[in-house]
Amino acid sequence: MKFRCERDVLADAVGSAGRATSGRGGALPVLAGLRLRLDGDHLEITGSDLDLTVTAEIEVAGGDDGVAVIPARLMADIVRALEPGAVNVEVTEDQATITGGRSEFSVNVIPPEEYPQVSEPTADSVTLSAEALADGLRQVVPAASNDDNRLILTGVQLAAEGDGLRLVATDSYRLAVRDLGGQSVLEEGQSVLVPSRALTEVIRSLGDAEEVTLVLGAQDATFRIGGVRVTTRLISGDFPNYRGLIPETQANTLTVDRHALIEAVRRVKLMARESTPIRLEMSHNSLELVAVTQDVGHASERMDVTFEGEGLTIAFNPDYLLDGLDAARGEEVRVETIGDNKPAVLRGSDADDFLYLLMPVRVS
Amino acid sequence: MKFRCERDVLADAVGSAGRATSGRGGALPVLAGLRLRLDGDHLEITGSDLDLTVTAEIEVAGGDDGVAVIPARLMADIVRALEPGAVNVEVTEDQATITGGRSEFSVNVIPPEEYPQVSEPTADSVTLSAEALADGLRQVVPAASNDDNRLILTGVQLAAEGDGLRLVATDSYRLAVRDLGGQSVLEEGQSVLVPSRALTEVIRSLGDAEEVTLVLGAQDATFRIGGVRVTTRLISGDFPNYRGLIPETQANTLTVDRHALIEAVRRVKLMARESTPIRLEMSHNSLELVAVTQDVGHASERMDVTFEGEGLTIAFNPDYLLDGLDAARGEEVRVETIGDNKPAVLRGSDADDFLYLLMPVRVS
Repeated sequence: MKFRCERDVLADAVGSAGRATSGRGGALPVLAGLRLRLDGDHLEITGSDLDLTVTAEIEVAGGDDGVAVIPARLMADIVRALEPGAVNVEVTEDQATITGGRSEFSVNVIPPEEYPQVSEPTADSVTLSAEALADGLRQVVPAASNDDNRLILTGVQLAAEGDGLRLVATDSYRLAVRDLGGQSVLEEGQSVLVPSRALTEVIRSLGDAEEVTLVLGAQDATFRIGGVRVTTRLISGDFPNYRGLIPETQANTLTVDRHALIEAVRRVKLMARESTPIRLEMSHNSLELVAVTQDVGHASERMDVTFEGEGLTIAFNPDYLLDGLDAARGEEVRVETIGDNKPAVLRGSDADDFLYLLMPVRVS
Repeated sequence: MKFRCERDVLADAVGSAGRATSGRGGALPVLAGLRLRLDGDHLEITGSDLDLTVTAEIEVAGGDDGVAVIPARLMADIVRALEPGAVNVEVTEDQATITGGRSEFSVNVIPPEEYPQVSEPTADSVTLSAEALADGLRQVVPAASNDDNRLILTGVQLAAEGDGLRLVATDSYRLAVRDLGGQSVLEEGQSVLVPSRALTEVIRSLGDAEEVTLVLGAQDATFRIGGVRVTTRLISGDFPNYRGLIPETQANTLTVDRHALIEAVRRVKLMARESTPIRLEMSHNSLELVAVTQDVGHASERMDVTFEGEGLTIAFNPDYLLDGLDAARGEEVRVETIGDNKPAVLRGSDADDFLYLLMPVRVS
């Protein structure tokens, strides 16, 4: 195999595919490598950990066609370090030689026949707005669990809802729901569970793309963004039935400047050591944030707000509260409550398509 | 105690003093705190780990005079997080209350009588150019050892040399020597050994100061930079006699663009795993850098250079070589060698006041 291309083009492709190899690994040594397949001027670079596979396709000035597996981390480091300009790659049976400027690197390769076959779903595809999908994923992915022992909760549910697509994630402490109107992917009543790790990679790949094509198979999903394909296994199992958790009506509504509340929570949180919650004391036109850590001290901050309802004090994990405030959109945020032991609902003031449900923490 | 001042002024002072408390600690719990002493409008903030003490003095709008010890990390976090503008601090027997904007923090204080007395040397003082001292320290401090088991080598020697001050550091693998002409501090033949950790703090404090005052006592040294005092214990013991190591003449001289060599070493070093050295193959008008790691691959890069002498191949630890190239000044660097197992000397092309001696690594 032999080809030449611009350093930056190759570095981007190697970077995208390489991220699928990182993190877990271990099972098969060959998965520490990137699989390169050259066909004419078309180069395909694949990284995979079996659960997640990222393939980047670029056009190069190709020589001999072929397939090779090159250590991923080393290749990424080398390509990034080369001087700007053309890079030449030539692979023999044992070695890949990468040259650029006056530098020459020879890297021992991995036998390509050990690399597993990754199949992509072949079902019908639908095309979504990249901007809307990226925005929605950024809002819900942080609410998914990172705990592999709760596999179902590490996924984001994509479900048909009305005429659109609904994204839902929960780690059982909070729940994020975003509706993407008019983006039909699934049939009425259908839903799939996509690992949040794959969606994080989708967000990264979306960049300034205009659209993304989604192919949903029975066990896999593939997102195509420009020359990059992100294929992931779906999680099987029943996602929690979250609908019953969302209160129909909430007695009390607090409306407050979103950025000012984010800043205030960040400050007061300084006094909330480890798992100390922060208390929101809501009353007529006033919100007081309070954190107390025994033997250390306490913090408080008062804000002007609009509050309708009966005064109450409710406590939250400050990090989960911040995630919700970050995910909401708009100048102001509404915090709707029923009581101090019932879930609160956060919404951006000017967007009805997103909801963040937050469980309160009991405080004595 | 009670005072008011601008957040940024307080944040800088708390940050400077706080750095002396970090890192080690453990011995005395009170040393996790900052000692504040208010006298009229004059506030003194001290952090210390007994070896290193940093005191910052600022002018404030003072109320009741007094002394208090406040947890350092928490105070720094709080002051930095407050909104810009005035900050009020009021200390009662048990608590320090820090307010700014609409935020109020109360922090449990530490009894000030537990805080150790830190005495400063009272000897004569000399004034040095802050710029020259900062430049010299940046050149030699990286060559000092970080290994506390080799206490002597963790220090930088300040010695009288000719009409000036000489800074010397070595970790036994390399040696950095910088002469500050006309900066008389010590008497003929006198030298002291200052911990490099304290000098790192001095570099940080120098900022855009114009001058620094140095007071050398028998066991301590104090650097005064504007309102900041850095006091450190001196290291006692005999610094290695490095003079015999520096060759009088070197047979071979390589002259090369300094930045181009830094870039090339950084690239080739990618293939130098763990403690693999990189080889410099010098010959007429050419330098080739080579790194080989068994079972992984090899890297090479050829450069145009001026070389006078007999061709030779010499191998170095790439990180130590980079430290020397970074410390040298000027467009070009000279690398002088005698043989592949003798120390090499690096000098910036346009500065005779700095020398970096580097031990080669034997390669088969």
